[in-house]
Amino acid sequence: MLTVEEARERILAQMKPLDSEDVPLTEALGRVVAHVVVSQEAVPPFANSAMDGYAIRAADTEGASKTAPIDLRLVGEVPAGRLYAGEMHVGEAVRILTGAAVPDGADAVIQQELVTVKDGIVTLTQPVAPNTNIRPAGGDVRPGVTLVRAGTELGPSEIALLAAVGAHPITVTRRPRVALLTTGDELAPLGTAPQPGQIHESNMPYLIAAIRRAGGDPWWLGIAPDRIETLRAMLDQAREADLILTSGGVSVGDYDLVKQVLSEAGNIGFWRVRMRPGKPVAFGLLGTTPLLGLPGNPVSAAVTFELFGRPAIRRMLGAAQVERPQIIVEYEGEAIPQGDRRHFVRARLHTHGARLIARTTGAQDSHLISSLQGASALLDIPEGDGAIHSGDLVPALLLNDALPWDIEVG
Amino acid sequence: MLTVEEARERILAQMKPLDSEDVPLTEALGRVVAHVVVSQEAVPPFANSAMDGYAIRAADTEGASKTAPIDLRLVGEVPAGRLYAGEMHVGEAVRILTGAAVPDGADAVIQQELVTVKDGIVTLTQPVAPNTNIRPAGGDVRPGVTLVRAGTELGPSEIALLAAVGAHPITVTRRPRVALLTTGDELAPLGTAPQPGQIHESNMPYLIAAIRRAGGDPWWLGIAPDRIETLRAMLDQAREADLILTSGGVSVGDYDLVKQVLSEAGNIGFWRVRMRPGKPVAFGLLGTTPLLGLPGNPVSAAVTFELFGRPAIRRMLGAAQVERPQIIVEYEGEAIPQGDRRHFVRARLHTHGARLIARTTGAQDSHLISSLQGASALLDIPEGDGAIHSGDLVPALLLNDALPWDIEVG
Repeated sequence: MLTVEEARERILAQMKPLDSEDVPLTEALGRVVAHVVVSQEAVPPFANSAMDGYAIRAADTEGASKTAPIDLRLVGEVPAGRLYAGEMHVGEAVRILTGAAVPDGADAVIQQELVTVKDGIVTLTQPVAPNTNIRPAGGDVRPGVTLVRAGTELGPSEIALLAAVGAHPITVTRRPRVALLTTGDELAPLGTAPQPGQIHESNMPYLIAAIRRAGGDPWWLGIAPDRIETLRAMLDQAREADLILTSGGVSVGDYDLVKQVLSEAGNIGFWRVRMRPGKPVAFGLLGTTPLLGLPGNPVSAAVTFELFGRPAIRRMLGAAQVERPQIIVEYEGEAIPQGDRRHFVRARLHTHGARLIARTTGAQDSHLISSLQGASALLDIPEGDGAIHSGDLVPALLLNDALPWDIEVG
Repeated sequence: MLTVEEARERILAQMKPLDSEDVPLTEALGRVVAHVVVSQEAVPPFANSAMDGYAIRAADTEGASKTAPIDLRLVGEVPAGRLYAGEMHVGEAVRILTGAAVPDGADAVIQQELVTVKDGIVTLTQPVAPNTNIRPAGGDVRPGVTLVRAGTELGPSEIALLAAVGAHPITVTRRPRVALLTTGDELAPLGTAPQPGQIHESNMPYLIAAIRRAGGDPWWLGIAPDRIETLRAMLDQAREADLILTSGGVSVGDYDLVKQVLSEAGNIGFWRVRMRPGKPVAFGLLGTTPLLGLPGNPVSAAVTFELFGRPAIRRMLGAAQVERPQIIVEYEGEAIPQGDRRHFVRARLHTHGARLIARTTGAQDSHLISSLQGASALLDIPEGDGAIHSGDLVPALLLNDALPWDIEVG
C-alpha cells in the first residue's frame, strides 16, 4: 500500500503547467496568473490631493494665525483628470478636489473647511506643514514592485491592483480540460428513473462541480458503455483532454471493462492507498494523457478527488497553492478511534472566541453522501491504536468552499 | 450620520428575493436554492452489500466453525444494477458485489475472503450475525428528510446529495442583474493610456469581479458621460436591471452630474455612514429599481460593497446567509488607535495552533489599493478613545474568498 504522500507525489510528477492565454481583467476572476507581474507604473501616478481644498506653497503660510491671517490669491483650479496649466508662484492658491494632481510649485493642500474664500482671495488662519494632505506619487505601488507572483489565483483585489497599473489584459494559465467517465451498471443517468436495483448517479454532478471549483473545465463523457469497442473508442477520444478522471471500477478485485481496457494500456497502476475512505486508486498515462481513476463510492470519490484530483488540476494550472491548506483545529465530540489506515474525517468548523473548533458531520461510513454535506474541513487522523478525544489538537485540511456558509459563532 | 447597521437595514428593506428558475444539477454550482428540498426517496433505495462476497441467511450459519464448517449451495449472483430473480431459500448463497441489492430472503453478506468456493458450494468456517455487511435502505437519507433549506448555496456535496435522490433539475433563484456605472473624469477606461492627470480605472474590474463572487450577473454600463442627456438616458436604461451600482460622485460636497441626475430622481438619499473607509453612500429607488451609490475611492468602494452591496445582492438571491460571517480573531501587531468612526481594517488571517490570528495588510489609508491585497478579513474596530493591542480579541468579518490562498500555518 502507498501512503497518501507517495501516491500524490507520483501523480504530481506527471503534471505540467499548461500553456497560457491572455484574458481581459473583467474575465480574470479565479484564473491563475502565468507569469510574475512587476509594476511598470507608479500608483498613484502623480502626487494628488487627499482632500477637497486648496493647493498652496507651505512656506507662504508660515506664521498664519487668527490674529494674523494670511491671504493667498486664488489663481485657478485643477479640473478632474487634467493638469494645472503652468506653475504656482509665491502667494498663490489653486482650487483642488480629492484625487486631482497637485500643481507644480505647490507642496501642500489645505482643506476647504479651514479657509474662507471671498473675491478671489483665500484666507488662512493657521500655518500648513509641507506635504499636508498630499498623497505622493507611488505611495500605493512603486514601479518595479512585484504585484502578483506566478501561480496567484486572481480575486477582486488582485484584479483592482492590476487594473491600477494598466496590466490589462493579463496572462493566465489555460484551464485544464478534464474528461470525466463514470462506471457502474447500477447507475441511472441524471434525469432518468432508476430501474429496480439501480441508483441515481451522484458522482458525475459532484465531480463536474468539484472540477470547476478546482479551476478545471469539465468534459462529461458519460457512463462507461458495456461494449468494449465503444469503451475503447470513448477513451481514445478522451486523450484529447488534459486529464482523464474516472470513478468506479478500479478496485484491486474488480473485473470491470474499464479496468480491463486500462490494464491493456499498460501504463496504468492500480494502487491501494493507506487511507480511509478511498483505498483503491488508479493512475497512469493513456497515451500521453494522465488518467486518474477514483473509487466509485461517493465519499471515497470525493475525498480522493480532494487529495489527488484537485492537486493534479492545480499543478496543471501552475497554481502556487496546489494542496488545501493544512491548519490545526481543536476537536470537539465523541472520541474517534484510530485504525489501521489514516482516516480523513469530514468535519464542520466553528469558532469559540479565537479558537477553531471542529465537529464531525456525523456517521463517517464511506457510502454516506450525507457525511459530506456542510463539511468545511477534513480531519487528518493518523493510523494508530489510540483515539482522538475532545480537546485534542488535530491537523485538518481546510475545504474553504463551504466555510462562509457553515462557520458558526459560539 | 447613520450607523452601518442603520444603513444596511434601510438598504435591505428594499430588496426582495427574485423569481426562480430550474437548472440542471450539472450547472447548479454556486446557485442559491429557492425552496426547501425534502427527500422523496431513500438513499440507498434498497438494502445493499458493503462488500464483495456472498449473500446468505444468517440462521443457516449458526454453529459454523473450522472443525464444523457449513456448506451453502451457490444458486446465482446479483448482477450490478439488477435484482436477484426470486427469493433465497434455506441453505443457499448468492454471489454479490459491493452496492448490489441484497436478495429477498438474505439477511447478511459474508466477505469473499472468509469463504472457500468449489463446485458450486460455498463453505463457511464461522457464523455470521444478521445484518452483517448490509447497508440498510435509507441509511444515508430517509424519505421526508430536509436535504437543503431555501437559501442554501450549492456546493459539490449538496449537488451530490440532490442527485442521489433524483432532485434534478433544481429550482434556484435567478441571479440578480447588477448594472454598474463608474464616474470620474480622471478615469482612463481599461485598456486605454491615461492622459496627464488621469488614472487607470480600477473600480470597474474590481466591482465586476465582486458582483460575480456575490452571485450577481454584472452589466457594465460604462464611465458616466459628461453630457447630462446621455447620462439620463443611460440611467433610464439601467432601470431594467435588478440593482444599479455606481461608484464615485456621491460625496456630500460633490456637484457631479451623476449626483445631479440622482437628486432629480427624488428618492435617492445621500448618506454619511459612521465608518472608515467609505463614509459617503447614496441609496434609493430609480423608478422602482434600487440604486446603491458607492464612494469613488477604491478601498472605500470595496468595503462599502462588502457591507452594503453584497448583502443587497444576496438578499435578492434569497440567500440564508446575507452578511459575511462574523468571527473573533486575536490581533497581532502594532497598536491600532481607535477613532471617531468605526474602522474596518483589512487583515490577513493566520493560525497558531488552533488560534485564529489576524495581522493588518499594512498601511490602511483609503486610497491604498494594495491594502486590499490578500485581505482575508475585515477587523471591526469600534469607535473610541483607546486602541487595539496585540493579543486583543477583535470581531472580524470573514472574507473567505481569499482564505485558502493566504492562510499561513505558524
